[in-house]
Amino acid sequence: MTTPEHPANRESFSARLTAAIRAKGTPACIGLDPKAAALPPALLDSLPAGTTANGSAPGGLSPEVLALLYAQFCREVIDVVAPLVPIVKPQLAYFEALGPHGMTALAETITYAHQKGLLVLADGKRGDIGSTAEAYAAGWLAGPWAADALTVNPYLGLDSIEPFVSRAAAHQAGIFVLVKTSNPGGKDFQDLEANGSTIYHHVAHGVEASAHQTAGDDRYGAVGAVVGATWPEQLVALRQAMPHAWILIPGFGHQGGTAADVAGGFDADGLGALVVSARAVIFAHQRPEMNDSLSPGQWQTAVERACKQMIEQLATETPAGSLRP
Amino acid sequence: MTTPEHPANRESFSARLTAAIRAKGTPACIGLDPKAAALPPALLDSLPAGTTANGSAPGGLSPEVLALLYAQFCREVIDVVAPLVPIVKPQLAYFEALGPHGMTALAETITYAHQKGLLVLADGKRGDIGSTAEAYAAGWLAGPWAADALTVNPYLGLDSIEPFVSRAAAHQAGIFVLVKTSNPGGKDFQDLEANGSTIYHHVAHGVEASAHQTAGDDRYGAVGAVVGATWPEQLVALRQAMPHAWILIPGFGHQGGTAADVAGGFDADGLGALVVSARAVIFAHQRPEMNDSLSPGQWQTAVERACKQMIEQLATETPAGSLRP
Repeated sequence: MTTPEHPANRESFSARLTAAIRAKGTPACIGLDPKAAALPPALLDSLPAGTTANGSAPGGLSPEVLALLYAQFCREVIDVVAPLVPIVKPQLAYFEALGPHGMTALAETITYAHQKGLLVLADGKRGDIGSTAEAYAAGWLAGPWAADALTVNPYLGLDSIEPFVSRAAAHQAGIFVLVKTSNPGGKDFQDLEANGSTIYHHVAHGVEASAHQTAGDDRYGAVGAVVGATWPEQLVALRQAMPHAWILIPGFGHQGGTAADVAGGFDADGLGALVVSARAVIFAHQRPEMNDSLSPGQWQTAVERACKQMIEQLATETPAGSLRP
Repeated sequence: MTTPEHPANRESFSARLTAAIRAKGTPACIGLDPKAAALPPALLDSLPAGTTANGSAPGGLSPEVLALLYAQFCREVIDVVAPLVPIVKPQLAYFEALGPHGMTALAETITYAHQKGLLVLADGKRGDIGSTAEAYAAGWLAGPWAADALTVNPYLGLDSIEPFVSRAAAHQAGIFVLVKTSNPGGKDFQDLEANGSTIYHHVAHGVEASAHQTAGDDRYGAVGAVVGATWPEQLVALRQAMPHAWILIPGFGHQGGTAADVAGGFDADGLGALVVSARAVIFAHQRPEMNDSLSPGQWQTAVERACKQMIEQLATETPAGSLRP
């Protein structure tokens, strides 16, 4: 793999994201979470004969074979969603779980998504200090992985986020800092109250400062926040608390968040939020209502139906409806 | 790469760590942080001719060539430290920054360290929810990477840590959860006070519960904590608050922590703590006092001197002195 070079004069991440959302008319972000056990059975037909015999990874396949399947699966999902949405979000954990072969599949997936005109948000929730944080930031935002944005974990503090902010700003990339996560346990530490406000509001305060600083004269900066769709009231408060921050909203669909739940994440122009769906779209072959009258070999059509349903729900029930052509 | 199989009946991580510490007579853990700009210049002589011409990575080398250098550097450091210490801690960020080539170098480094009889702690500070956390845990603790332990970030809450705890317990591996990190910004969120105690004490409470649960009849469990050497008073309090948790103590040496600063992390038998030094040991060729009378081609001797100095300091100024043969 050669190191991709970014155009030196490309627009900021926020400007590119805004343009992509307007072009597709939707803020839907499709999560690429290639979990072995949930892959469409028909996908295994694409394997060369004799590859399924050995190995101890999930599903009885070796990490090397699974990595080939993940790359193939992601290419086919990207083919379906690229005309429909502005951005995809590969979940690094699933690729990483396959070892170096999985990381090669991830690099191929990022490259393929870019070739198809999609922005790529690497969901790694990385975080470390000093030159270690700088290594993550350089690798993901400027170096070999060349993602357009990366999710970042704030537990180590503001000086741990700063190298990501600097790299993002310098390379017209973005970061999304975990603020209020979608899982029930998100409340364990994030909701504790200190000095009159929750920990996640303290984090949000730091996010807004960096977002404002990197926004310049634009509405949104290079630093965004992650807020789960499962907390609609908190989402409204956080939209107000972080006026310069894009909000990435996972938890839609499979985790129970509805389009109405995420409506509070948008600004009046239908911008400022990205709504993620992963399993409900990419594994739509498992949903009877999406799979109606399809053969197993037509799982891509189920993906397309689920993606279009999500786009329709967001257009009908959130301010993002105003983006439609 | 084939998937390494763990012996089904190997001892618990805590038991294996204790045995390794007793065998080497020291709790020193050497961090493998192969940063391009700090590599010994003599290492570049090991490159095939013509490999330094192209590429845009740090130091003017391509990621592919740098990955070869990182693997070579780590092998040589491991050769030096394997007879001296129980465990090494590769920092995932530096390998990851090189893309898939770097991840291959990381896998080779882990395998080589195991061949040399070392335990391996993968420092990735991973964290996510549900099946995504499970994917990280499976990959690092049971799957292709086959590390003995992994560092974990607690921001997403106790249910995000649970998949790591389960995998660690099931595969005789370990995790170290970030509690109080060594950087100045560690105080930004970790030191906020809620319900009468700091956030990091809330995290420590969760760590101790899982450590106790996984310890069974043993002194220490599969779940440990990360506490920076730069906070000696807090280290004493956290040792008391987490009697069943191994404590991993970074920040020794380069970041300013001394042997006296880490003394509070040990129990009365000189166990319960691992003290990490990375740059001060692996890049000892940059320290004039370690480099005395050495030629550039003898950088490994500087590493050996620095490693032995660290071991001596820990033996002299901490309860770990009682472990010496």
